[in-house]
Amino acid sequence: MSEPTMNGSEAVVRTLRDSGVDVCFANPGTSEMHLVDAIDRVEGMRVVLGLFEGVVTGAADGWARMTGTPAATLLHLGPGLGNGLANLHNARKAQSPVVNLVGNHATAHQQFDAPLTADVPAFARTVSHWIDEPTAPGDAGAAAARAVQEARSAPGRIATLILPADVAWEEGGRPAAPLPAAAPSTVSDAAIDAALRALSSGRAGMLLRGEALRGEGLRAAGRIAAATGARLFCDTFAPRLERGAGRVAVEKIPYRAAPAIELLGQLDTLILVGAPPPVAFFSYPGQASELAADVPTIVLAHPHEDTAAALVEVASRCAAGVAPLVVAPSVPPAPDDGPLTAAAAMAVVARLLPDQAIVSEEALTSAAPGWDALAAAAPHDVLHLTGGAIGDGLPLAVGAAVACPDRRVVSLEGDGSAMYTIQALWTQARERLDVTTVVFANRSYAVLEEELAAVGGGSAGPKARSTLDLGRPDLDFVALASGMGVPAVRADTVAQFAAAFAEALGTRGPFVIEAVIPAGA
Amino acid sequence: MSEPTMNGSEAVVRTLRDSGVDVCFANPGTSEMHLVDAIDRVEGMRVVLGLFEGVVTGAADGWARMTGTPAATLLHLGPGLGNGLANLHNARKAQSPVVNLVGNHATAHQQFDAPLTADVPAFARTVSHWIDEPTAPGDAGAAAARAVQEARSAPGRIATLILPADVAWEEGGRPAAPLPAAAPSTVSDAAIDAALRALSSGRAGMLLRGEALRGEGLRAAGRIAAATGARLFCDTFAPRLERGAGRVAVEKIPYRAAPAIELLGQLDTLILVGAPPPVAFFSYPGQASELAADVPTIVLAHPHEDTAAALVEVASRCAAGVAPLVVAPSVPPAPDDGPLTAAAAMAVVARLLPDQAIVSEEALTSAAPGWDALAAAAPHDVLHLTGGAIGDGLPLAVGAAVACPDRRVVSLEGDGSAMYTIQALWTQARERLDVTTVVFANRSYAVLEEELAAVGGGSAGPKARSTLDLGRPDLDFVALASGMGVPAVRADTVAQFAAAFAEALGTRGPFVIEAVIPAGA
Repeated sequence: MSEPTMNGSEAVVRTLRDSGVDVCFANPGTSEMHLVDAIDRVEGMRVVLGLFEGVVTGAADGWARMTGTPAATLLHLGPGLGNGLANLHNARKAQSPVVNLVGNHATAHQQFDAPLTADVPAFARTVSHWIDEPTAPGDAGAAAARAVQEARSAPGRIATLILPADVAWEEGGRPAAPLPAAAPSTVSDAAIDAALRALSSGRAGMLLRGEALRGEGLRAAGRIAAATGARLFCDTFAPRLERGAGRVAVEKIPYRAAPAIELLGQLDTLILVGAPPPVAFFSYPGQASELAADVPTIVLAHPHEDTAAALVEVASRCAAGVAPLVVAPSVPPAPDDGPLTAAAAMAVVARLLPDQAIVSEEALTSAAPGWDALAAAAPHDVLHLTGGAIGDGLPLAVGAAVACPDRRVVSLEGDGSAMYTIQALWTQARERLDVTTVVFANRSYAVLEEELAAVGGGSAGPKARSTLDLGRPDLDFVALASGMGVPAVRADTVAQFAAAFAEALGTRGPFVIEAVIPAGA
Repeated sequence: MSEPTMNGSEAVVRTLRDSGVDVCFANPGTSEMHLVDAIDRVEGMRVVLGLFEGVVTGAADGWARMTGTPAATLLHLGPGLGNGLANLHNARKAQSPVVNLVGNHATAHQQFDAPLTADVPAFARTVSHWIDEPTAPGDAGAAAARAVQEARSAPGRIATLILPADVAWEEGGRPAAPLPAAAPSTVSDAAIDAALRALSSGRAGMLLRGEALRGEGLRAAGRIAAATGARLFCDTFAPRLERGAGRVAVEKIPYRAAPAIELLGQLDTLILVGAPPPVAFFSYPGQASELAADVPTIVLAHPHEDTAAALVEVASRCAAGVAPLVVAPSVPPAPDDGPLTAAAAMAVVARLLPDQAIVSEEALTSAAPGWDALAAAAPHDVLHLTGGAIGDGLPLAVGAAVACPDRRVVSLEGDGSAMYTIQALWTQARERLDVTTVVFANRSYAVLEEELAAVGGGSAGPKARSTLDLGRPDLDFVALASGMGVPAVRADTVAQFAAAFAEALGTRGPFVIEAVIPAGA
C-alpha cells in the first residue's frame, strides 16, 4: 500500500502538530497560501491572525513564556519577517522557544530580482539560533521536526524554517516524527558545593532567571534565603516572574547602573542561577558596563542547565525543613479619588488584581512607581520587555491570553510604547481575549526625556523636544481601541480609574483604559 | 586658532546638512540622544517624528522619490532598524537614495549581552548597499559624507551609517566636505544605434523606469512612440510615474504573468530603458518567471545610466520635429450616486484630482478597476508599492507631502494595507500635511482571496478564510484616524464619497475617508 501523497506544506504542518506545536500566529501573503491551505486541512492546528507581523512574533513570545513550548509564526518573505524581527529579538533575549515559518519565492524564481526578492536568510540571521531552507518537499517534514527540536532545546531558541513556494506546493511531502529536544543539563556537584560554601561564608546573593523565578525553583530559592540570609535578585526585565502574596520576594536589580553596582557591591559573592553576569542596559560616558565586576561571582546554573533542580538540591543541603519566606498579603491603600497619577493607578491595579493574573509590563516610567505596590497583590506572573525593543507588551498579552484562557491578562502600557504594535488590540477583539489594557498617557516618550536632559545639560531646544513629545495632536486611545473593536474608557481621576478597572475586570474579552496622567507623575 | 571642538554626533549632522541632507525622519531611543541633541543645535536640519520606524523609512522613500535626494532616517539600534526594514526594502526596489543613521551601543559595551545588544550590521545588510560603523569620533564626519555619496550614486542606494554611542558622544568630531556622487553614465552610441534599428524594423516596445517615466525622458519616449509606433510600458509597480492629461501615456504591464507574457509576446523587440528585464511578481506551478523570455530584448539604458538623455538622443534621430502623443483630458463620468464601489470611487477621484497631485497607490485590488479612469485626470505623479512589502502607502504620502508642501497628496489605501503603518496618520496630523487618504474598506485581504482560491481549488475552509477576513470586528478607520488627530468620515454611497472627497481636498492638513465597498467591488 503506497503512502497518501501530500505537498511540502502539509508535511510541515503535520510535523509541527505532531511535535506539539498546535498554534500558529499568522500574517501570511501569497507565497504562504499553500501553508494556509495546509493549516486549514490539518486538524489540531489553531491559527490566530495578526494585522502586523510584530503582533504575530510578540504573541508567539507570550505563548512561549506561559507554556514553555513554541508556537509557530507564519510570515511573508523577507519583509514580513523584517516586521517581526523586533519582537523576535525580545523573544531571543527571553530565551523563548519560537518556530518561524517564512515563505520564500520558488527556488527557480529566486534568481530574478522580483519585487519581493530579498535575502531571506539574511533577515533570519539577525535573530535566529537556527535556520534551514529545504529545497525539496521530501525534506520539508524533517526540517520542521528539526526546527521544533532546536526551538525546544534548553533554555529556548529561535528556529526559522524558510519554505520556498515550490517546496510548499509540490507533492512528495513526508511528515517527520518528533525529535527529542536537548533537556536542561544537570548541574555539577562542584557547582552545588561552591554555592553552598558561598552561602555559608558571608553575604551571598543569588541572581535568578528562567525556571528559578517560578514554581519549585523559586520556592527552593526562598528556602535557601530563609535558611542562609542570602538575598534574591532578578534582572530589571526578567522574562517571567512569579510574584505577589504567598510568593517568595525577589529584588529587582535597578535599571540605572550606579544604584545597581552599589546594590550588588554589598555582596561577598554573587551566585548566578540561570542568569548571565548582570550588565548595564546602556553605556554612558565614564560608566562601567559590568554591574558586578568587583563582586566575586560563581555560577550555580548556566541558562541551559536545570536551574530548578539545582536550587532544590542546594535547599535540601542547607535548608532542610526550612519554609520559604513569602510575601504577606498587604497591599498598600489606594487613594479614593483625586487627580490620577501613575502611582495611584498602580495602587488601584494592585488592590484589584485578580488571582493568577498575568501582568504584561511595558509601561516603563509609569509602572516604576507602582512596582512595589504590586509586590503583595494577588499571586500573578509578570512578563517584561526583555530585549528593549519597544512594542512587545500588547502582543505578549495576546500570546499569554491565548495560552492561558482561564487567566486574566493585565497589560500595562506606555502611550509611546503602545503605538508600535497597536494592531494587537484587533487580535484581542477577534479572539475575545480577556486582556485588560491600561495605557498610561503622559503624552511623551518619558523614558527618553531624562536621557536627553542628561545629554544636553537640560537645555534641549524645540527640535529635540519635538522628538520626545507625543502631543500635537494628543493620541486618543479610546478612539484607537474603538476603531479595532475594543471597548475603552478614559480616566482622569483615581475614582474614574478604579471604576474603569473594576468594569474591565468584570468584562469578558478585551478592554482598554486610557489613564491620563501628568508627565513625570 | 584651534578648531572649535564638537562630538561625533555634531560632525555627522553638520556633514549631512552640508551634503544636502536637510530633513531627518526620526524614531530615536536612548543611544541616539546625542544625535537628537546635535540635530537640535545644528541649523538647517529639519526633524520629523514617526511613532513607528516603518513610517520613518517609508517617509524617507517618499521624500527621495519626489526630490531625487536622500533624507536621513534616525533609528534605534538593531530592533529599531528591524522595524524599518520592510519600507527600506521598498525603497531599495524603488532605487531611492536613503541615508540611515542607526545608533549602536558604545564600542566597549558591545561585547556584553545587554538587552538591546544585537548584530546591527546584520540587520543593515538585509537592505543596504553600503554600511559603515566608524570607531572614532574623528572618522564620523567622513563616514557621513561617504554615506551621502553612496546614497546619491545613480540610480540611488541605501546607505546605513551605524554610530556607536561613544563615537556619538566623544569630542574630536570633524565635519567633512561633501563628496561628489557618481552621476548617471552616458549611454553608448552602440546602444543608441541598436535601439534605432529595433524601432525601425518591426513592432518595438520600450519598458521605461526611473527618469524615463517623467519630464523630458518621458516626453522623448512619447515622441519616439509617435514617430515609430513603438509601444511604451512600465512595470506594474513603477516607483514614480507622471500621468494624466497632457502627459505621454504608458501601458502598465499586467500583474499576472499570463497576460503580461501575452502582451509582451506581441513585440518583435523589447527595449529596456532604465529597467531590468521584466519578471513575474510571484511564481506559480508551471508558470515562467521571465515575462519576456521569448522576446528579443536589448538594453538602451541600464538603471545607472542616463535614461533621459538616451531617450532624447534617440528621439532626435528618429523623431525630429515630431510631437509626443499625449493624453486628452477626458475623464469618464462618475455616477452621481448609488452604492459605493471601488470603480465608482476611483471615477470620483479621477474627476476631482487636483492639478499636480501626488497619488500614493497601495489600494491594490481596489485601485485596479480605477487605473484607467485616472489616465486622463489632471496631471499627477503616481507612487507605487515597489517592493511588495505592504505598509508603504501612508508613509510614502508623509514623505511626499514633506517634500512637496505645495502639492496635494492623495493616498489610496487598502484596509489591510493601511494597518501595517497606520501610525503614519499621526505624523500627517502633527506636520499638518495636505494628505487626503482614501481607505477602501472591503474588510478582507482581497489580494489573497483569489490566491487561496487557486491553491485550495475554491474550497477554503473556515481556518484559512479567517486569515484573509478582516471582519469580526470590522476596523473603523474614522475612529482610528480620529484617535491620531486626523479628521475623518465614512462613505457608503457615491454621493457621500464625492462630497467627502471634495471636502477633504478643500481642507488644509490631512483627512481620511473610509470608503466602504463590497468585497470584490
